[in-house]
Amino acid sequence: MIVTFVHIWVKGGHIEDFKKASIANHMESIKEPGNLRFDVLQDDADPSKFVLYEAYESEEASAEHKNTAHYLTWRETVAGWMAQPRQGIKHKILAPVDKGLW
Amino acid sequence: MIVTFVHIWVKGGHIEDFKKASIANHMESIKEPGNLRFDVLQDDADPSKFVLYEAYESEEASAEHKNTAHYLTWRETVAGWMAQPRQGIKHKILAPVDKGLW
Repeated sequence: MIVTFVHIWVKGGHIEDFKKASIANHMESIKEPGNLRFDVLQDDADPSKFVLYEAYESEEASAEHKNTAHYLTWRETVAGWMAQPRQGIKHKILAPVDKGLW
Repeated sequence: MIVTFVHIWVKGGHIEDFKKASIANHMESIKEPGNLRFDVLQDDADPSKFVLYEAYESEEASAEHKNTAHYLTWRETVAGWMAQPRQGIKHKILAPVDKGLW
């Protein structure tokens, strides 16, 4: 199992559009067979800063996400709204280690 | 519901001790009545960098965590192992919004 944090900075004026596109991406991503979580979060102190919390049962399942139609649609939709490049940071899971708790 | 990311940088030589103390904290934190998740993660590229992913049903429940015996024990245990001050960053949850999915 792995978790990737995707840090995203959105240009002013596109925050509501970004939220809508990312919630749509969430709704499809959680249906992927290897997906464990796909939380969409907005920084409380900076509404232009978002994090996607993406948990997958394997590296392969995480990589496969980038081949899905919903990911590709999301990527194209939000491309012009990025204030700076996204940063994806992979993490090992120390707890919980029981897959049933994801 | 809220999520707090707690970013933690650990001094070299204390990584295994920190993991053990934080997993113990996880085991008690998930029993708190208002806790939704308490994931312990280690940066894949930098083993001295950790994140606690703390989801609570309310601001009050999140604040109450800092009054628990297990938090106070963890804080005291890890105090000398911090390479720099911890950073807690609060987030709004955009998805999933169904509490049953947390």
